[in-house]
Formats: sequence, structure tokens, C-alpha cells
Amino acid sequence: MAQFCPLDNVRIVLSHTSHPGNIGAAARAMKTMGLRSLYLIAPKSFPDAEAEARAAHAADILQQAQVCSELHQALDQTVLAAAVTARPRELSHEIFDARQGARELLRYAHQQPVAVLFGRESSGLSTSEVHKCQIIIHIPANPHYPSLNLASAVQLIAYELRMALTEQTTAHVPISGSPANFNELELLYTHLEELMIQSGFLDPDKPKLLMPRVRRMFARARLEKEEVQMLRGLLTTLHKRQ
Amino acid sequence: MAQFCPLDNVRIVLSHTSHPGNIGAAARAMKTMGLRSLYLIAPKSFPDAEAEARAAHAADILQQAQVCSELHQALDQTVLAAAVTARPRELSHEIFDARQGARELLRYAHQQPVAVLFGRESSGLSTSEVHKCQIIIHIPANPHYPSLNLASAVQLIAYELRMALTEQTTAHVPISGSPANFNELELLYTHLEELMIQSGFLDPDKPKLLMPRVRRMFARARLEKEEVQMLRGLLTTLHKRQ
Repeated sequence: MAQFCPLDNVRIVLSHTSHPGNIGAAARAMKTMGLRSLYLIAPKSFPDAEAEARAAHAADILQQAQVCSELHQALDQTVLAAAVTARPRELSHEIFDARQGARELLRYAHQQPVAVLFGRESSGLSTSEVHKCQIIIHIPANPHYPSLNLASAVQLIAYELRMALTEQTTAHVPISGSPANFNELELLYTHLEELMIQSGFLDPDKPKLLMPRVRRMFARARLEKEEVQMLRGLLTTLHKRQ
Repeated sequence: MAQFCPLDNVRIVLSHTSHPGNIGAAARAMKTMGLRSLYLIAPKSFPDAEAEARAAHAADILQQAQVCSELHQALDQTVLAAAVTARPRELSHEIFDARQGARELLRYAHQQPVAVLFGRESSGLSTSEVHKCQIIIHIPANPHYPSLNLASAVQLIAYELRMALTEQTTAHVPISGSPANFNELELLYTHLEELMIQSGFLDPDKPKLLMPRVRRMFARARLEKEEVQMLRGLLTTLHKRQ
């Protein structure tokens, strides 16, 4: 068995990729920087000969790739998920550039799984996909043409992750407490939404931006397990009183 | 006219590229980071439809690309040339990682042209090509699979150049004196070699590593114009005395 490396805890998640060549090129980009955990959400064509050709000697990463139908499967058990996006968002999350974002991801990856989410070649990530993440990573680019190829974006993030690992400054910023994982947070959001609907606070026919705002708020907080337990305890108590 | 940007002074030089798709992808990578000066040394196929397809909206960079038959044409008038290489060299130049190398290039690019040289997809740069450069840039990578795609390597260097520009720390490290350019240095080396041969110090049938060592030494020194003039004055003087 190879020794554990924090990069093993970093999942590269590609959502709805159209061109199989980009999947292969992304796998190669990952391997050159020492990453190996690839998740594919509803790829248009996979496996595919074009992916294998562009992967070069990273066929092992393609073979071990996890193919999912829904985003939540790829984020299962992760304690931090970053959305890579070029477009500004109305409800912006905490935004990091690629360098700072890689450091933040790695800080958690020493202990537990994290994910970096990349969207479609044409249109990027949907708003609901971004809302499932805790932070946004923005790759600095030419404002007149910020359109990086998908595999190039993966290459840059993978490179910054490797650089962050080399710096080893991450060791100096320990994480206090035990961070809540994706599943715990989603249960919290569901629990909260049910309560808000039941109480009449949230009209399911006119939800507006209420839940996205809730998610953003908790995303910035980086909730710990104990805090989620506490909140859910509170929700349960309130539920009974309705 | 657009305002001058130091990135306009950075030439991306691709030597003997086999796959035209890589040229197109490199052009796109450049444009996403605000670079636009592309030089191609003896490309296997250019122009080429595959290059245009992979360039996406960077067709302007392909159209303005300079195609050369020899490396010295691409390095004409540059004051600093960096060889991007994965292999260690026996006679190593001053080696920078991608981040430090980008800062060093940009330090000069505020004033005068510089170049970053990328080799063949299969075998990288030849030793004689590396010897025409003053510094080596090494991209940190997985030691078990450091084989970056050519356009990915261009993407990373272009990204680090953009990051270095944003840092603007370069303004704090002004260059003393006026750096000698490629042409002046090559004339110096030629002059010196002639003198060494004529003097019997260098046997042209058994040159060994003499000239590479000379080049490495001067490369580390980052000669200024006045220093080259002085050296050549000395050589001329010595020549007459033979």
C-alpha cells in the first residue's frame, strides 16, 4: 500500500461533461499533480475511447472513476466542497482564488474527504449545484476571455493543491473541532426547510431565495458536528411545539 | 490601442510541436491569462484546422503567431529566456519553480521582451536549446508521472505570470543596469569561442562541455549591456595579440 497523502482525500467532481476528451485530459492533469479520485456526474459519454486517448498514462484514474447520477452522491461524506466558477453570483459564497482555495481545501483534506466541483463546458455550474458547496473558487483570468478549457481548470486547481501540500503551511492552521460532513448538513437543511414550511414561514410555491440564503450563511460558518447536532436538537424541539 | 501590459512582452515559444491541436490549446491557454505573443519553431503542421478548433476564441493569437525555422529567431531581442523542462540536466542552469520563474520573467518584461520555451511533446527540449536560455523553469509535479500535456504546461506558466502581475511585487525588485539581449550574448559567445579555438584552448573536434559551461556561467550572471561590451572589447584585444 502507498502511504497516505492528503491529496488522496481530494475528489475532483466533473458535472455533466459533454466531451469525453475533456474527461481524459482532466484525468491526466490530476495524475501529473498526484491526485487520483475522480467523480463523474451524468457524463454524456463514459467510458469512451477519446477519454482514454487523452488520458495518456492516467488510464488507472479513469478506471477507478466513480460515475454518479446526482451531485449528492459525489459529495457524500465530504466536509468541504468548493465550486469552481467564473461567473459572479448574486448570492455569493465565501470566495477564494485558486491559490487560497487550494490551501483551504488541503487544510481539511489532511483528515477527511473534500471535493472540487467543475461544471459543464458550455454553461458552468447551476445555481443549485453551487448552493450544495460551502465555498467558491475563482481562477484569476483575463476578464475579456476567462473561458478556460475544463481540463485546464482542473490542471490549475490540481497544481495549486500540490503547491499547497509542498508549502506545508497547512499544518500550522489546525481545524478546531470536528467538521460536519455533507450528509449531516443536508439533513440539517431538510429538517430546517420542513420546519419553515410547516410553520408557514416558507411558502413552497414561492420559496424565493430563502433556502439559498440559509445555505450560504451556514456555509460561511463551516459547521462542526456538535453544532449540527445542537441545531437539529433545537429543530426537533420546535417541531414538536408546532 | 490597448494599454501596454507587461504580459505583452512575454513570448511563448513552442519548439517542434507535433500535434497541431496542442498549438491551438496553448493559444487558448495563453489568451485566458492575457498573453498573446506566440512563436512556433518548425511546427509539424501549421496552420491546421485542429489547431483552430482547439483554440476556440483565441484564433487571433494563432493568426498573429510567428513561425520560425530556428530558435534564435524566436529569441531575437529577448533579455531573458526560460526553458521549461521536467528532466534534470547535467549542467544545470539556475532553476526556478513555476511561481518563482514567472516572477523573474515578469521582472524583466516590464521593460523588454522575454521568452518561455517549451519543447517537443515526446522528448522535451534538446540540450542545445536549453543552453540558449538563461534560466530553467521546473513545474512541480508528481515524480511518478510528471508528464504534463504541452498546453497544460503553457496554461500553468501563463497562470503564474498573471498571478505574478497581480502581486505587483515585481515593482519592488528593480533591475539594475540595462540587461544584455539575446543577440548581444550570442555574439559574445561566438566571439569567445572563436578566440578559444584560435588559441588552441578549445579543440573543435573535441569540444567537450566547454561552451555549455561558459554559457551557464554567464547565464547565472545575467550580463548587462555594458558588461558584454567590456568583455567583447577584451576579446578583441586578446584576438589581436594571438
